[in-house]
Amino acid sequence: MALNSEGDLVGLLEELRDGRATVEAATARILAALREQPFQDLGFAKVDHHRSIRQGFPEVVLGLGKTPDQVATISSEIVAHGNPLLVTRADEAAAKAVQQKVPGAIYHPLARCITLAGEMVPGAGTIAICSAGTSDQPVAEEAAITAELLGNTIDRLYDVGVAGIHRVLAQRGRLDQARVVIVVAGMEGALPSVVAGLVRVPVIAVPTSVGYGASFGGVAALLGMLNSCANGVSVVNIDNGYGAGCIASMINHL
Amino acid sequence: MALNSEGDLVGLLEELRDGRATVEAATARILAALREQPFQDLGFAKVDHHRSIRQGFPEVVLGLGKTPDQVATISSEIVAHGNPLLVTRADEAAAKAVQQKVPGAIYHPLARCITLAGEMVPGAGTIAICSAGTSDQPVAEEAAITAELLGNTIDRLYDVGVAGIHRVLAQRGRLDQARVVIVVAGMEGALPSVVAGLVRVPVIAVPTSVGYGASFGGVAALLGMLNSCANGVSVVNIDNGYGAGCIASMINHL
Amino acid sequence: MALNSEGDLVGLLEELRDGRATVEAATARILAALREQPFQDLGFAKVDHHRSIRQGFPEVVLGLGKTPDQVATISSEIVAHGNPLLVTRADEAAAKAVQQKVPGAIYHPLARCITLAGEMVPGAGTIAICSAGTSDQPVAEEAAITAELLGNTIDRLYDVGVAGIHRVLAQRGRLDQARVVIVVAGMEGALPSVVAGLVRVPVIAVPTSVGYGASFGGVAALLGMLNSCANGVSVVNIDNGYGAGCIASMINHL
Amino acid sequence: MALNSEGDLVGLLEELRDGRATVEAATARILAALREQPFQDLGFAKVDHHRSIRQGFPEVVLGLGKTPDQVATISSEIVAHGNPLLVTRADEAAAKAVQQKVPGAIYHPLARCITLAGEMVPGAGTIAICSAGTSDQPVAEEAAITAELLGNTIDRLYDVGVAGIHRVLAQRGRLDQARVVIVVAGMEGALPSVVAGLVRVPVIAVPTSVGYGASFGGVAALLGMLNSCANGVSVVNIDNGYGAGCIASMINHL
Amino acid sequence: MALNSEGDLVGLLEELRDGRATVEAATARILAALREQPFQDLGFAKVDHHRSIRQGFPEVVLGLGKTPDQVATISSEIVAHGNPLLVTRADEAAAKAVQQKVPGAIYHPLARCITLAGEMVPGAGTIAICSAGTSDQPVAEEAAITAELLGNTIDRLYDVGVAGIHRVLAQRGRLDQARVVIVVAGMEGALPSVVAGLVRVPVIAVPTSVGYGASFGGVAALLGMLNSCANGVSVVNIDNGYGAGCIASMINHL
Amino acid sequence: MALNSEGDLVGLLEELRDGRATVEAATARILAALREQPFQDLGFAKVDHHRSIRQGFPEVVLGLGKTPDQVATISSEIVAHGNPLLVTRADEAAAKAVQQKVPGAIYHPLARCITLAGEMVPGAGTIAICSAGTSDQPVAEEAAITAELLGNTIDRLYDVGVAGIHRVLAQRGRLDQARVVIVVAGMEGALPSVVAGLVRVPVIAVPTSVGYGASFGGVAALLGMLNSCANGVSVVNIDNGYGAGCIASMINHL
Amino acid sequence: MALNSEGDLVGLLEELRDGRATVEAATARILAALREQPFQDLGFAKVDHHRSIRQGFPEVVLGLGKTPDQVATISSEIVAHGNPLLVTRADEAAAKAVQQKVPGAIYHPLARCITLAGEMVPGAGTIAICSAGTSDQPVAEEAAITAELLGNTIDRLYDVGVAGIHRVLAQRGRLDQARVVIVVAGMEGALPSVVAGLVRVPVIAVPTSVGYGASFGGVAALLGMLNSCANGVSVVNIDNGYGAGCIASMINHL
Amino acid sequence: MALNSEGDLVGLLEELRDGRATVEAATARILAALREQPFQDLGFAKVDHHRSIRQGFPEVVLGLGKTPDQVATISSEIVAHGNPLLVTRADEAAAKAVQQKVPGAIYHPLARCITLAGEMVPGAGTIAICSAGTSDQPVAEEAAITAELLGNTIDRLYDVGVAGIHRVLAQRGRLDQARVVIVVAGMEGALPSVVAGLVRVPVIAVPTSVGYGASFGGVAALLGMLNSCANGVSVVNIDNGYGAGCIASMINHL
Repeated sequence: MALNSEGDLVGLLEELRDGRATVEAATARILAALREQPFQDLGFAKVDHHRSIRQGFPEVVLGLGKTPDQVATISSEIVAHGNPLLVTRADEAAAKAVQQKVPGAIYHPLARCITLAGEMVPGAGTIAICSAGTSDQPVAEEAAITAELLGNTIDRLYDVGVAGIHRVLAQRGRLDQARVVIVVAGMEGALPSVVAGLVRVPVIAVPTSVGYGASFGGVAALLGMLNSCANGVSVVNIDNGYGAGCIASMINHL
Repeated sequence: MALNSEGDLVGLLEELRDGRATVEAATARILAALREQPFQDLGFAKVDHHRSIRQGFPEVVLGLGKTPDQVATISSEIVAHGNPLLVTRADEAAAKAVQQKVPGAIYHPLARCITLAGEMVPGAGTIAICSAGTSDQPVAEEAAITAELLGNTIDRLYDVGVAGIHRVLAQRGRLDQARVVIVVAGMEGALPSVVAGLVRVPVIAVPTSVGYGASFGGVAALLGMLNSCANGVSVVNIDNGYGAGCIASMINHL
Repeated sequence: MALNSEGDLVGLLEELRDGRATVEAATARILAALREQPFQDLGFAKVDHHRSIRQGFPEVVLGLGKTPDQVATISSEIVAHGNPLLVTRADEAAAKAVQQKVPGAIYHPLARCITLAGEMVPGAGTIAICSAGTSDQPVAEEAAITAELLGNTIDRLYDVGVAGIHRVLAQRGRLDQARVVIVVAGMEGALPSVVAGLVRVPVIAVPTSVGYGASFGGVAALLGMLNSCANGVSVVNIDNGYGAGCIASMINHL
Repeated sequence: MALNSEGDLVGLLEELRDGRATVEAATARILAALREQPFQDLGFAKVDHHRSIRQGFPEVVLGLGKTPDQVATISSEIVAHGNPLLVTRADEAAAKAVQQKVPGAIYHPLARCITLAGEMVPGAGTIAICSAGTSDQPVAEEAAITAELLGNTIDRLYDVGVAGIHRVLAQRGRLDQARVVIVVAGMEGALPSVVAGLVRVPVIAVPTSVGYGASFGGVAALLGMLNSCANGVSVVNIDNGYGAGCIASMINHL
Repeated sequence: MALNSEGDLVGLLEELRDGRATVEAATARILAALREQPFQDLGFAKVDHHRSIRQGFPEVVLGLGKTPDQVATISSEIVAHGNPLLVTRADEAAAKAVQQKVPGAIYHPLARCITLAGEMVPGAGTIAICSAGTSDQPVAEEAAITAELLGNTIDRLYDVGVAGIHRVLAQRGRLDQARVVIVVAGMEGALPSVVAGLVRVPVIAVPTSVGYGASFGGVAALLGMLNSCANGVSVVNIDNGYGAGCIASMINHL
Repeated sequence: MALNSEGDLVGLLEELRDGRATVEAATARILAALREQPFQDLGFAKVDHHRSIRQGFPEVVLGLGKTPDQVATISSEIVAHGNPLLVTRADEAAAKAVQQKVPGAIYHPLARCITLAGEMVPGAGTIAICSAGTSDQPVAEEAAITAELLGNTIDRLYDVGVAGIHRVLAQRGRLDQARVVIVVAGMEGALPSVVAGLVRVPVIAVPTSVGYGASFGGVAALLGMLNSCANGVSVVNIDNGYGAGCIASMINHL
Repeated sequence: MALNSEGDLVGLLEELRDGRATVEAATARILAALREQPFQDLGFAKVDHHRSIRQGFPEVVLGLGKTPDQVATISSEIVAHGNPLLVTRADEAAAKAVQQKVPGAIYHPLARCITLAGEMVPGAGTIAICSAGTSDQPVAEEAAITAELLGNTIDRLYDVGVAGIHRVLAQRGRLDQARVVIVVAGMEGALPSVVAGLVRVPVIAVPTSVGYGASFGGVAALLGMLNSCANGVSVVNIDNGYGAGCIASMINHL
Repeated sequence: MALNSEGDLVGLLEELRDGRATVEAATARILAALREQPFQDLGFAKVDHHRSIRQGFPEVVLGLGKTPDQVATISSEIVAHGNPLLVTRADEAAAKAVQQKVPGAIYHPLARCITLAGEMVPGAGTIAICSAGTSDQPVAEEAAITAELLGNTIDRLYDVGVAGIHRVLAQRGRLDQARVVIVVAGMEGALPSVVAGLVRVPVIAVPTSVGYGASFGGVAALLGMLNSCANGVSVVNIDNGYGAGCIASMINHL
């Protein structure tokens, strides 16, 4: 007989107290629970809620490789549990399917995201998101949409690439206001080094696959960012705007 | 005649007000200042202090590739300016040379760092540093020494690799206390994913060059960390314990 | 005159014994057989049967790059020889073509396999197949279908990725029952290390091409698995569910 | 008050049974144990012994990067606990240091291993170890020494590279006797494919760093083995003779 | 009140001179301008015009990844400001859209460029453009069209690959006339070395993605060019005909 | 006045002999020819015919990336000059276009070649072409068609991969008859090593892009072949059946 | 009783003829020979001599990684069997050790080879060996020494790199005399393309590890050669002068 | 009888004019010269002087891999011919050896160069050399020494890395004075993009091997520079300060 809830445990202990169970039998049953059961499946304990809940943000749907129907079904379940909705890498067909099942869901074509906002704890400050070129905007927007949904205020500083260094310098005032900065860049990926040299808060660098030839699908930008000579730069995967938005939100909620 | 301080500017404007200078001459001199001078060299403005001061931590010396004499000379200059001292990737010879010029400097042989502590603003919480294997400890210690020097309290959780998953699970209580977590791992670099799945704070992942064959000097660990399926993981360069310590300190000082 | 069977050899020796052939002629004919003929074509010896028969499982058809007609023709020949059928990497069109020529053939769309079961020696124990994420299931299913066709009992443990480590820990009881474990994972490929730390049987790790950016089509997962710090992990090619199923079956039939 | 052993649990339950503790207090203490403590540290449960014991072989010392003293100290502890000793990648200095603290320890210079045999469960059959060239022998011997220490009988088939295919064909009889085959090869790494085509048991392929130029430190051999067209081949890291020996032993003990 | 033009500054200084403003107020306003405003946005100063103007050539549109409408809109704005037009990597649809909004715009299908010529300072000499094979011509033409638009005279020497070395030798007279040489080559990328050995002017090498197999999308050519044993060779990104044309024009305008 | 033919030179020398030209004028004209003109364009000398003629085989058309019209136009020109025709990497559309302009041209769909045979010097012996798997046949056939067109007799030994080593051993008699052997293999690319160990003639190894995952589009096979432990193996580019056919023909015509 | 020679077979057949053996016994013994024995170990058949003898050149010793003693012992055995001696990648210590055991052995310090010439069948023509730069000479000499020992006449054309194209053009007469050409080059590896465009015989290209930075230890040269646009170029491993010498000798002995 | 000088040609023509030679004989001899002789070896023509002379700078000695004696011997020959001397990658031992044979030769330890200045045509303007960090100075100095020797005026702007962007902005005035700019940077290699955005002259980017981990010996910097989003950037090999100096000098001499 398994020990599936706090009620089960209380029941067992009451039996023991009342003499209906022996110490040996109770010991065996409790030890079995300790050995065999995963924390989060015990039922009688809330220690191990779902990861997404523990980490302070809802389950996120990666739309890539899923049919519109699959995306819509998962989305409606998430919303039915009272969670805000975020689907990343979603195309228009997926968006239409979701919108039929989830009234009010919004499609962001540039960011390729579907969202339905919910109640979130507001972040402590502003997250600045810089992008180097126009083609980097979809990734920057994925980060922005993600962080907004998670309760953060975003300041977008787009098209401030290093080849015209005055463009980023002109935004120093806004950069100084940010509690954390996301920097999105393809090609040589040099912008995070410049930005990190201007601010004293953490910089999350996102390489993008923007470029051709020896950009190798974002590898050049990735390596540039990993080798940044500036302090405070950490890096996420190529095109991973979502990941950067999550981390920035975590930092902004500290 | 350059315009080198706020005093110069006031002086010029007073001359103008008092009729000792023409509008044309004053216009020319101010425009010249706007055009020619870098912000931080103007002198009359404090906008652009030294990067290391702006970013809240002192100049750090990379010992690698410098002679003991060079390291000692730079170190004594830093200390003479009242700054705390941190030399990374320093060997024993460098340490001896520094200790002659900088009394009280401490050498940490495992972390290969030389330090002389100073007054630092204390961080808001604890930085947990996990390392996967014994060989990863030098990098973990470089991160720890760096973060300690920058005013942080460190909780070391070493030798908690994923092949014995109970070892990291046994430390959940301590992980839950951390405000930011640094995870140092070589070989397959899987530990950050596991740790990030357990905590709700940012995880800074540091791949190490520990391993052989297809570890390719830390590339396997680096790729593993960049592709982490867990939320909240950002990555620094291979063996960059110093960088991780900086970022963690920045986050912990928010 | 070739020497094509044991009967031919006996006949020749009888002629020699009976004086109908000379020692010289017999010597020449036997030497020729030794020199010219491949073992498995001698006919009079069973030393070198077809590889697939020697290795305990039938010829398998790689559907990729073959027309539906070609797949169907090969499939019907295999079945005509009394063998069970396995076509991997087959699309629906190939499945329809096969089903017309091979009544009873089943198409498994997730695994992209076509099968017709046959009599196989049952394996000694259970093969557990773990997969890290939903997108890894096609590869996991290819392994499962392969191993089932070869006579094994499979226990599927899907969606037990390391970012929620409790999910795999919750399955320790089932893992302990397995005689061999296949672990399928993309992205950082960390699951085999965790699983191998929990069991004392061999783990066959299958990297998948699931991921993007710096996953480099499965290279990150492949490297992670090759560098596993856990004992007992060996690795097959990216997305090679079929290969893992074969090896696991071989082990399970020892 | 923590719950550190089976005795503690029994004591608590006896207090409850005897009325010295309330159900509420007992429930709280047991739930805390379920939540906070790692399985293997509970003490009162044997579920989670040390990984190396669970997996059927003793702790193994990686000699690389450790001082002779460190290796000797760890070795004498392992032996003091009644375990057999295996140090891999050990040089002569380490061997001498170990032999002073561990009488009877043997140094195998070719395999660069130090061993002290112990009682091990014998494997079910023979492990054949093939190596392609003379320079591959150190890795092959590391596998052999490892597997022997773990209780297996080894059949060594060295210098049977594919450029003289008759050499491996000449050993078919011995290969047919093996329950599992380890194949060690550098350069093009083709031997595992040929061997796997001859046998019906699992083949563990070990690429070596033997070669120059476009062998890229064993990458050519590694890729060759991962792409093997033969059934039954799984692969370990470059030069990982130890790993192959472990896996083969696991299979041979099923 | 911002300080947006030279007029504003003069006005402020006049107020100060005339006693309508205090030294303190003027100081504050000027310091604010020094601190906050990017040079190029001051308006009252021409120091920091748009990068493309400073560098002597007009804004160029990268057609790749833009819709025909986007390309056409940007193009008409550029032309409306009196600039010559260059769109690179443009397909026919983009060309048609542009031609509707920009009468006189010309489409170059081989070079995939759209142009509308303008007044440019003529270069000092001739730019020779060599290409190795027929398939390299689109990249060579992109360079040629770019350089022509920027005011240069071009001498095209196409199909002079090294496998028929006489072809390039036959053009020595024309090469000797050039002030700078662009060499475009795919496959092994050897032509720049040969050409640079023949001339005494700078050679801009452009690797192309022409090739298959181990050309790795132009990497073989790129590496060949970076390792050129000839003096005077510098390299741009794979297929970057535009970049080569720019650099050659800069050199030719010195 | 240029010096365009042997006739021109004779004429000039006759003028000189006859006193109609001075030594100075003749010297100047001859020196100019020596300096300025490429050998093969002099006209009066046949030293430097077209490369394809010098090398003993006709111009070959690479169909890839050319329109059917372009292929047909070039093909008809080649045939019009009396040359045999070989177009590689041609699709059906190109074949149809060629066949309209070149009656008698044959399309080989497996090899993707178009040919029209011509008079060729026959090779001295037989070229054996081995391929490892069914999917390698297109590349093997490209080699075969090329070598046949160039006057060679081909012996095809297909589907003799190393996983069933008896298959290649069974063909030793035919291999022994070959004057040069082409070996075509994808995946691990091990076949050339085995074949080269059996024969004493040169082996041209052709890696193919057959495979998936860690075959990296033929890189695994390429590296395997470059690292062959057998004597006599040289390698061409991935999928370069044409190149192998050319080289084999050159050797066979020695 | 094994069947170890043609004499054994004749003896057995005579016993059978004379009634001293039964057909059954003779059948069993002959079948055993067919099944168990490798061809080359039968003794009574010459089909499968040692590879090095079949391939027309003696066993060659790779000196790299062997002690001077080991090299000397192997060398004296080879010479004792009447074979010529070739040790590659040998240092001076090895040479001295060999010279003590093998009187007359010569050390070639540039090529790092030890040789003792023997009787070899002379090649049909001359082998030309071109090298691009001075640093490529060791590899070129390894090829030259190898080919000379195997009975070939060598024509050395050193330091004819493509950056001074006249240097190789000046040698066209000598190149035209060669029956096969070896081209050795590091850095961009362009020389084989140029040479192959000048001759009509096979070109064996040897990339060298000469270079730095993006030469990646010879990879740039290797890729350049594999992508050669000229006909007739096949490639061996980086720095594999020995391999090129072997292949050229094989071709020259056809 | 060869035709080795202009004198020989005049002599032949005089014989012809005077009737001592026939038209046929003269034709044959002249045609032979046209066919066989390389331009630069004809002697009677100056068309093809030595490459280093044609290209406007003297032969340069790469010291790497040469003994001090070899370097000294070559150096004294170069100086004996009246040329200026430049030895790159020279250590102190080489410098001492050179200085004994070449009085006045100067060793530059940081740049690892040996020089003896000579008469050079002065360049038209100034070459600015920027370096990002202290460790990049040896490469920057190699470029500077090279360019100075070739007759150029150098303006050194060292330690102006992008992490402190004000450092490079502070040098805009000096950058504006340059006729060509060399930018030397390791790690992420971002400086050339920033500099190229500030100037309107060509930028030669030199990646250095400064860095660790994912800098991959300069690959990260190399890729960053190849992917520069700024106009006017071309790239040379990693650590190739010499090459950059040459190219800049060529441009500065136009």
